[in-house]
Parts: sequence; structure tokens; C-alpha cells
Amino acid sequence: MSEPNVLRAAVVGAGYWGPNLARNFATSDRWELAAVCDLDAGRAARVARASGGADVETSLDELLARDDVDAVAIATPARSHHAITMAALRAGKHVVVEKPIADSAALADEMVAEAEARGLVLMTDHTFCYTPAVRKIRELVEAGELGDLLYIDSVRINLGLIQPDVDVFWDLAPHDLSIVDFVLPGGLRPVSVAAHGGDPLGTGKACVGYLFMPLESGAVVNVHVNWLSPTKIRRITIGGSKRTLVWDDLNPQQRLSVYDRGVDYEQIVADGEERRAATVSYRLGDTWSPALPEREALGQMVTELADAIGEARAPLTDGRAGRRVLGVLEAASSSLAAGGTAVTPYLERELEISA
Amino acid sequence: MSEPNVLRAAVVGAGYWGPNLARNFATSDRWELAAVCDLDAGRAARVARASGGADVETSLDELLARDDVDAVAIATPARSHHAITMAALRAGKHVVVEKPIADSAALADEMVAEAEARGLVLMTDHTFCYTPAVRKIRELVEAGELGDLLYIDSVRINLGLIQPDVDVFWDLAPHDLSIVDFVLPGGLRPVSVAAHGGDPLGTGKACVGYLFMPLESGAVVNVHVNWLSPTKIRRITIGGSKRTLVWDDLNPQQRLSVYDRGVDYEQIVADGEERRAATVSYRLGDTWSPALPEREALGQMVTELADAIGEARAPLTDGRAGRRVLGVLEAASSSLAAGGTAVTPYLERELEISA
Amino acid sequence: MSEPNVLRAAVVGAGYWGPNLARNFATSDRWELAAVCDLDAGRAARVARASGGADVETSLDELLARDDVDAVAIATPARSHHAITMAALRAGKHVVVEKPIADSAALADEMVAEAEARGLVLMTDHTFCYTPAVRKIRELVEAGELGDLLYIDSVRINLGLIQPDVDVFWDLAPHDLSIVDFVLPGGLRPVSVAAHGGDPLGTGKACVGYLFMPLESGAVVNVHVNWLSPTKIRRITIGGSKRTLVWDDLNPQQRLSVYDRGVDYEQIVADGEERRAATVSYRLGDTWSPALPEREALGQMVTELADAIGEARAPLTDGRAGRRVLGVLEAASSSLAAGGTAVTPYLERELEISA
Amino acid sequence: MSEPNVLRAAVVGAGYWGPNLARNFATSDRWELAAVCDLDAGRAARVARASGGADVETSLDELLARDDVDAVAIATPARSHHAITMAALRAGKHVVVEKPIADSAALADEMVAEAEARGLVLMTDHTFCYTPAVRKIRELVEAGELGDLLYIDSVRINLGLIQPDVDVFWDLAPHDLSIVDFVLPGGLRPVSVAAHGGDPLGTGKACVGYLFMPLESGAVVNVHVNWLSPTKIRRITIGGSKRTLVWDDLNPQQRLSVYDRGVDYEQIVADGEERRAATVSYRLGDTWSPALPEREALGQMVTELADAIGEARAPLTDGRAGRRVLGVLEAASSSLAAGGTAVTPYLERELEISA
Repeated sequence: MSEPNVLRAAVVGAGYWGPNLARNFATSDRWELAAVCDLDAGRAARVARASGGADVETSLDELLARDDVDAVAIATPARSHHAITMAALRAGKHVVVEKPIADSAALADEMVAEAEARGLVLMTDHTFCYTPAVRKIRELVEAGELGDLLYIDSVRINLGLIQPDVDVFWDLAPHDLSIVDFVLPGGLRPVSVAAHGGDPLGTGKACVGYLFMPLESGAVVNVHVNWLSPTKIRRITIGGSKRTLVWDDLNPQQRLSVYDRGVDYEQIVADGEERRAATVSYRLGDTWSPALPEREALGQMVTELADAIGEARAPLTDGRAGRRVLGVLEAASSSLAAGGTAVTPYLERELEISA
Repeated sequence: MSEPNVLRAAVVGAGYWGPNLARNFATSDRWELAAVCDLDAGRAARVARASGGADVETSLDELLARDDVDAVAIATPARSHHAITMAALRAGKHVVVEKPIADSAALADEMVAEAEARGLVLMTDHTFCYTPAVRKIRELVEAGELGDLLYIDSVRINLGLIQPDVDVFWDLAPHDLSIVDFVLPGGLRPVSVAAHGGDPLGTGKACVGYLFMPLESGAVVNVHVNWLSPTKIRRITIGGSKRTLVWDDLNPQQRLSVYDRGVDYEQIVADGEERRAATVSYRLGDTWSPALPEREALGQMVTELADAIGEARAPLTDGRAGRRVLGVLEAASSSLAAGGTAVTPYLERELEISA
Repeated sequence: MSEPNVLRAAVVGAGYWGPNLARNFATSDRWELAAVCDLDAGRAARVARASGGADVETSLDELLARDDVDAVAIATPARSHHAITMAALRAGKHVVVEKPIADSAALADEMVAEAEARGLVLMTDHTFCYTPAVRKIRELVEAGELGDLLYIDSVRINLGLIQPDVDVFWDLAPHDLSIVDFVLPGGLRPVSVAAHGGDPLGTGKACVGYLFMPLESGAVVNVHVNWLSPTKIRRITIGGSKRTLVWDDLNPQQRLSVYDRGVDYEQIVADGEERRAATVSYRLGDTWSPALPEREALGQMVTELADAIGEARAPLTDGRAGRRVLGVLEAASSSLAAGGTAVTPYLERELEISA
Repeated sequence: MSEPNVLRAAVVGAGYWGPNLARNFATSDRWELAAVCDLDAGRAARVARASGGADVETSLDELLARDDVDAVAIATPARSHHAITMAALRAGKHVVVEKPIADSAALADEMVAEAEARGLVLMTDHTFCYTPAVRKIRELVEAGELGDLLYIDSVRINLGLIQPDVDVFWDLAPHDLSIVDFVLPGGLRPVSVAAHGGDPLGTGKACVGYLFMPLESGAVVNVHVNWLSPTKIRRITIGGSKRTLVWDDLNPQQRLSVYDRGVDYEQIVADGEERRAATVSYRLGDTWSPALPEREALGQMVTELADAIGEARAPLTDGRAGRRVLGVLEAASSSLAAGGTAVTPYLERELEISA
């Protein structure tokens, strides 16, 4: 097997998250960090230096004009994601973009369509999906270890910084939604989204929130996010017809537990009659906690980006995944504004895009 | 202070819960168990014998005609609560009745009105409210230790028996609702109730449920009940402007934790201007876990019943409390049937009743 | 397979533990409770009545003279165990006796020898060994799932009643020692016993204690018992060359955990040379928590007694097991008196007994 | 209050721990990092550069000859601690030295005597003592919040690297011993030390160890260290006559818990008689968990070194503290070699030193 080529990345945006991307490209054996680009040259230079000496760019146009950049990682504010991504794709670059992928689902559709039309990789940086625990969850679901999925209950609560521009749904739920999107075969495509929020401090935005999303299969997904909790909980329960899995991110000694416990429900419809009977039985089997490797999620993500480019395929967290999560968040905001009424999310327009 | 008189109780219904009531009346120094009444004489006799020898009655009319019975405890199926309670009140007996207090809120209103018109005590057996932990929570809230209430989040999940006649809301949520009703000053009177349920096994009723209830104060209450969880959680978080309390019923070494942590939010409206500013700061203070006495809840409840009768006052969990909980459950069922739309609960008609 | 005969038991001693034995014999389908014997006839009568109506005896001689009693369960103070057991054996009865089996190891030897000479079953009531968790531990050890045993660390601490007559070793360590004896193939036969105790309140006896016991295999056993701990811990860790098991009796949701983690140590002695090298590697494999049935330990114990009698074999916790535990406790007391010096325990004299 | 002068430090040894010391001196507002000294100039240069540009020295003599170095931090192998410390003190430098302070207690005595004779600060780097949790424990003990100390039980277990040159006592117990030394008023001065170890893998050194140390007050200290545990526990329980404290370093949400629970024991000696009675009662009071600031321990340590120099006083973890811990470890090794016999530790020779 021949050695895969080393690709060259540029990071656009040297603020909060950019340095992490830069560091991971710089230390990956699949990547070389070609440049760091920011309007603030000093900030870009600091990130470049800390990553071992990439070029500094202050002009996006000049960056995109370079031949020696294969992919661009965009870590700028959300409102600029669309414009920068479109420019990068038009310049023939592969793109990985922070979440939310854009500031509206319609714009995200354009980005997905552009990338697909050009045969370029568009990836959303759903970092949590690259943790060993979430990778393992996806594997277990795919392998059928849980059986049919019955419900997903996700809790992400903690004392949190009340954000000036986003509510608790947009601040915290993207993590839960991107994980649920990742582990559900086919991604998260709820029939409807109902959002309930509380703003008991009068901050002008929801600080406590609940999202309820039934799926077509009959399964239900619920997400609870909260900025006002004195205790920190990050737990996702995925109930299946065969087994149930609990991910407790704050228990490093046992992050994943797979319970061979559940309710077996069998409906018996007697022939020719209306009479229905049901037998209910309980399984109280073993619990199993798989060992997980210690790996940095972002390092796995940049490897997956390189693999997707090399194999000319969609990455695990592609633009459509970012688009689905964004669609659910938009539906949540609509539902919240409508007093919790269930709202049908505007899902990706697959036919048009794929055509 | 003179010794309080010993009162005499009769238990109606010798099925699942009746024996517990009988035992607690029999062992209380405030009560004597006068009789156990059941259509099945053998069953009544067994309960009477196990409680140390009360009379056995098989006729409700004969029981209620007795002069030596002060109070009747009703542990029959819910559909009979109204008729038995009305008969008992008309016979001049004080009544404690299992929850749900009746099978419709309108019937419960009649019961409350009848008791109040006759000056008799009508109590709902909200047993959890008499546990030392819940009593302590009420005390702390009343004393202002938590400040203004901001949110209540209640989780009660476990592998549960799928009931033939009730869904997970009617099976489990009465516990949460009766506790929330007990600790909220003035009781639980939500502005609206939105219920979302899942029936992923196709049993014909919700097995996973979420209830969202905003209060007039701006606080929000949410209840999560689930029959399909492999892990057992019984936790209520009560967020306040000063402190936040967590009740974890499955941690006997630290059932209650009071966190002096939170978010302090202060809004500053600059004079004469539209400009608004806000300062957000965090308190990361001590945690405190009060010691709780070991006492059986039902024993406390029968003492409270005796006290309420002796002092001619409403008991802590009176008929109106049972009525409020029932009203919320009815609203939840309406909301569920309407796809999660927020429903205004039919609250007790206080003016008419009190007039 | 024919139905096993129902055997008949008598309980001697109607104090603290006797009623539990009586109830379990009375409710077993392998046993009938023939009689309860106590010098205090009223006490015996209460226990007999609560167990459904056995005979009351106040004379041991008359009890032992009865033909219709197959086995005697002795729940009297320890100083009378030897005399009552010897009398019962001489009367041809099988015996189960509370721990400690006697008040000296020499007397216990006589009891063991007498039972073996007469072909009667002598069982020690090591109740904990009949819990589902401890049974499972023994199975796993026997099946080689843990590999070679490396160490056992047992902690049993809690606020405890300071006993008037025994120290913390004699009060609590019998539980740990009986469990360790049960799970170690061949039983607990330490090379030596070193006991260290603390009496910081000046009560005249150790309230905090540590027992260290190396085994011939090179494994070590340590027991920590403590009456002064505000938190309750009951945990036994059994380290093996293949896997390590942790029993946490206060975690009902995960009492047993089997860790496929450990240190692999391989010593390489280079041929013909003094040079030694060692490779150390770590296994960080899965964790597994076996499901355990819900069964009352004493019910399992009376079934085992019936089986042992029926099959004319030693029960799982025979007199020799009780004898070994007593020998270790005696050695611990000697060590404690000698300032913690390692003491060789006086182990059962197997050759003489077996001859 | 005038601004304290900025002092200048040099770090000797640029291996595992040196970079941490260098970084903390460099970022402290009380210190300037003057130089990093290592025989390997490249290694020293890397540490100097990562800390923002200190001088590189490869000769200890030249370093000590500099006028502009106030203190030397020694992070070299233990066998060189004595020689480097003595040279630094003779050159008039204050010294902070890694633990163990020296490779024998006699050499440590010389170091302590030299520093005291010259009026220089000699500090041992007992890093754990500068964590917020351990500082708080010391405060609580000093303020009498726990009452008289009754027992200390320390557990530090985990899968650990089997060290080529030290056993589990020398690898892990210094942490426990330095903490116990820090919180005990007057430091850790046990009457005797008994060490029991196990080497079940045949590595040639103890991998599982227990240290028992009675104090003159009647209190007892026990330390359990283990390299073979699949679960990680770092917990110290400090039992007092008034309250008991538990430090659980792996529970970031509640590191310290103070239990107002315990046993009250009162001995009554009746006048003129031999008769003794005792009343035992239990307190089951509240639990309290103090909030702890987030501060890096090493940063606190270098501040304490500056304060001690400025105030010409012994630092909190002075050379005598390092000397006491070393004395206990030496006694543990002697005890282990003698099969667990209690050994009297060779404590610091205070009279001679102080004279």
C-alpha cells in the first residue's frame, strides 16, 4: 500500500477555535499547515508560530489563489461561513467549516450543491462525532447491537455563560443534534420539532430548553439543555429493542455502558378476531462497557478529511449533516416563537441537489 | 398541653395499598384502627388480623353508619373514589383518599366543595410529600433559602411494568406533580401544559413522556417519565435565584444537595436611552447536604391527618392539591391527544368553592 | 427425577438471628420448621407463631430426643455453640451454626471431628456467601476468569455500634474473611496474619482495624474495618493476572464489575547470564458487569443445607470453613496484642481429622 | 504596602519536572526566570525558550557564581539532591528541591542544618500541599473544625507503571505522606511504621502496599498504595472527634466533604468504684462541601517560596517536612525488609539542629 500523499491546509480565522484546527493540521502526518489567514496579521502570526511556522495571509483572495493549498478550514463567525465557503469551493478548494454551517438553511443548501457539483469535499466540524465514544456508539448502532432504536434522551446541563447573541438551544444543542445525526442511520430527520424554553431571569433569551422530535420510525428524540444547572451532566441514553446504551461523558472510568436490559413487548393479534393480547417481559441481562482508545477528536477529524479527499467520497460529517442540524435548529426557533407548537423542519432538498 | 384524643379510622379497600394504610393507623399513637372494609370478607379479615385485630366490614353503608369511626381511608380503584368519598362525607366522616382523587376534575370539585361545606377534612394521599426529604425541600423553599424559583426539572425513569390501563404519564407523573405541587408556594398552577409522548414499541400508549409547564412567574417545570430506561433515576432539580437544590432519591448517603452556585444576572437600563446592558456573574459557593431523619412517610401522613382534624384546618395535601394534580394530568392527556399543543389546565374553581 | 424429601428443622435460640432462620426454613419447599427452642418460652412462641406455627420447646434435651427433627440451627451466643453442637451431633442431628463457630479453634476442631466421624453435616452460617454476588464471584474465580489471584483488598467501613464485648475485627471482619475463604480455591489459609488497630476514643477496644495476610502463592489479602467512618463502603477488589473484579455492595445498579485491565509482566532471564529483563505492558480492555438474580441469601443457604444432607457431602460453607475463619480471627487478636507482629494462624488439623 | 520585590530563580534539571517549575517561575508576578541549567544544553535551551527566554547554563558552578540568582529549584535525580543543595546553600542561594529531599535521612539532616545555619530558605516541593483542597483541609484542621484527629486513611490506587528503581511505596506514598505531614499539626511523627507489601507478579519489588502508623495521640494513620488496581481511587478520610472529612480527588464536583457525623463516646468512671460505664451516641448531622478556587498548585508553591524568603521564615513545606517524609519512607523500607515488624522512624534531630 502506497503512502498517502500529504495534503496542505489553510486555516481561515485565528480566533477561538482556529488555533486548535491549526495545531491538529500541523501535527497530523496526513497534513501540512500551509497558511493561517486572518484580517488581523498579528493574530494570524501568533497562531502560525505556535503551530510551527506556517505562512501568514491577510487576504482571503490571495490565499485562495494559491496553488499549494488543498483545503481550507473556516473558523470565522457564522455569518461569514457561506461567503467564504462559496469562494473557497469556486477556487477548487475542499472545505471544512465550523458549525453552524451557515446562518440559514437555504444558504447551506447552496453550499452543499456547489460542493457536490464541483466534486469537492464539504465537511462540517462536528467535533464530538470524532471522539472515541461517539465513534463506538455509531459502530454499535450500525452493527445492530441495540436493535431498533426506540428513543434517544440527551441531557447537557451546566452553569453556562449566558451568550449575548444566541440562546441555550443554539449554544448547546448543536452538540447533541450533531451526535444524534451521526448515530442515527440516515441522519436526524425528525417528523417535527417542538421546542419549549424558559427565561426565568428575564435575559431576553431561553436559558433552559427542551426539544422533542418524533421520528418516522416511531422512535422519539428529546434534548434537554440548561445554562442554570449547578451540576454538570452530559448524558445520552439510546434505547433499543435489544439493548440500551448510556453515554456519560463525565465518567471517564466508564463512559459507555451497554445494558442488556429492556422490555420485550410482543403483540398477538388473534386470527380473524379483533381481540388483541400482548405479552410483556423483562430482560435483566449483563452490562458491558467497551474500552475506548485515548485519541483527540480533532486529530481524527483531520484524518477523516484527508481520507474523504483521497477517496473522493463524502466525509462522515459532511455538509448535508451540518445542513440537517441547522434545519432542526431553525425549526426549534420557529417552534419556540410559536409557543412550542410542533414545526416540520425544512430538510435538505435531496432530489434537487442530487440531480 | 393536654394529650390529643385518639381518633378512630376505617380503611376501605384491602387490596394493594390498603394494608399499608391499615398498618400505619394501627401503629400510630394518634389513631386506632376501627375497621377494615372490603367486599371480600376474607381479604378484609387478613388485613385486619395483620394489623392487630380491627373489625371486618363488608358493607360500606354499615361502616359509615357507625358512630365510632372518625375518618375513612379510601384505597379502592379510582373510579369509585368519588362515590365513596361523597357517601363518607355525607355521613360526617373525614376522608383520606388515594390518588388520583377522582376520575375527573369535575367530580373532584364536588368532593372538595362537599368537604368544605361540611367542615370536614378531605386529604389526598400524596405519600411522597411526607418523606423527610420532600418535607425539607418545602421548608427550604418556604424559608426563602433558594430565592425565587426559576425552574424545576424532574426525572423519574426506570424499567417499568407497562400498565394495561394507564400510560406512563398517569403511572409515574403523579409522583412528580404531587411533589412539585407541595413545594411550590400556592401549589402547581401552570399557565399551560404541553405533553409529548413516545410509544416506540406500539403498545397503544405512551411509554416515554415529557411534560412542560410554564408558570406565571416565568419559571418553568418539566417532567420526564420513562418506562424503558435500563437505569433508574429519580431526581428533581429546583433552580432558584439564590441557590439550587437537587434531590436524588437513589443516593441514600446524600439525598438532598443545596448548591450555593448559580448565575447572577442584573439588567441595567441606561437612563433616557434605549441601550441595555447586563452583567452576568457566577457564584461558585459551597454545597450543603442537610441531615434527614429516618421516618416512614405514611406514618407522618396519618399524624398530619389527625392534626388537621384536631385543628380543623386543611391538611398539607388536601383535596385541592389532589384536584390540581388531577387537572394537570387531564390537561396532559388533552395535549398528548392534540400532538403536544399547549393546553390550559382546568384549575380548581376556587371562587365558587370558597364562596 | 424424584421429588427430594422434605426435611425437618429446629431453630435453637429465638433472639436476634433465630427468627430469620425460622422464617427461611418455614418458607422453603425443602424444609418444614418443626420447632423453635428457647429457654424463654414466650420468645420461642412468638417466633414459632410468626413462622406459621411450629412447636415450642424450652428443653434442648427434649428437642434433641425427638425423632422428627433432622437438623438443628443454632443461633445462641457464641460461648454455647460448642456444647449445643456437640449434643446435637451426638443425637444424630445435622447442624448449622452461627459464626463464630465456637469460642476457640480447639473447640471448633472437636466439632468438625465429631461431625465427620458421624457422617453428619456441620455447616457454618456464612450468610454473605449465599448472596448472588458472592456466588458469582466464586464461579468466576473457579472458572479461571480472573487468572491467578494476585491480591484481595476488602473494605467494610461505616458508623457502627461500638460493641460491649467485641472489637471491630470480631464484629465486622468475619464477613470479609468468610467471603474470602469462600472464593479462594482451598479456602483462606494465610501464611501469617498481622493486625493493626486503633482505639482513638479510648473505648478499650479497636474501632479501626487493618488485617494483612500473605498467602503461599505470593498473593496478599488485606481487610480494612472501621466503626468510625461517616461514609459507608463495602467493597472487595480481587486482582487477578487476567482480570480484576470489584464487588461494590452498595451499588445495586452495578454490584459486580469485571475489568479486563491489568498489568502484564513478563520476566525474561537471558540464558547463561545474570542479566534480567522484564517487559511490562498494560491491558485496557472492556468492563463487564454480570446480571445477578434477586434471591435472599438465607433461602439459598437452607437449600444448600438440604442438598448437602441429601447428597451426604460437605456444604459449601462447612465446619472447616467456620474453623478457618475463627483461626484467622484468633491469630489477628494475637497479632494485635503483640503490636502487629505477624502471627502464624493455627489452621485446621486436617490430617488428624481426616484420618 | 509596598510592592514586593521580584526575585530571580534558576531551575536545575530540564527533564520531566523542570519545565513545570520553569513555566511557573516565568509566569509568576513574584519571580523572574533567570536561567535553566542542564548538562544537556539543547534540553535546557528548549525549556528556556518555552518559558519565554531565560539564560541557558550547563555548569552548576557558573550558575551558582551568578549574583543575579536568588533561588535555585532542583529537579534532578534524587541521588544528586544533597550535593546540589549543599553547593547552592553555600553559594547563598535559597533552595527548593524535589522530593525525596535526599537519598538518606542523614544527608537530609545536613541540608536542613546548613540552610538553618545560613538563614536560607530550604523548601521541599510537596506539590499536592498547594492544591486548593489540601490547603482547605489544613485550614479546617487548624481551626479545630474536625476536633481531635482520630484516624487518617489514605488510598491511592491505579494501574501504574512498574518502576525500574523504586517500589510502590517510594513511588506513590510520598504524596500521601506529604499531605498527612502538612495537615497534622506539628507534622507526621509516627510512633512506629509497619509496612506490608505484596509482589504477586514476581517483579522483585512491592506493587501493593500498606503502611500503618500510630501517632502519640492515639490516632492512627494508614496508607494503601497499589499499582495493580483497574479502578483509580485517590481518597483521604480524616476522622475527627467533631467531624470527619473526606477528600476525593477524582470527584471534581465535590472534592471535599465534611460530615457532621460521628460517634460520641463518653466514659464515666463512677466515684470510688471500679465500675466503668460508657455512653455511646451517634451524630447524624449535615454534610458540607466547601467551594474551592481553581488554582494551579505549582503557582501557589512559587508564591509561598517568595513569601518565605521575603519574610525570612520557613515555608509551609520546608526541609524538615521533606526530612520527615523521607524518614517515614526509610522506616517503611526497614519494616518491609523485616516482614512488617513495626519500626521506629529516625525523626529529625531537632535539638541538635535547632541549637
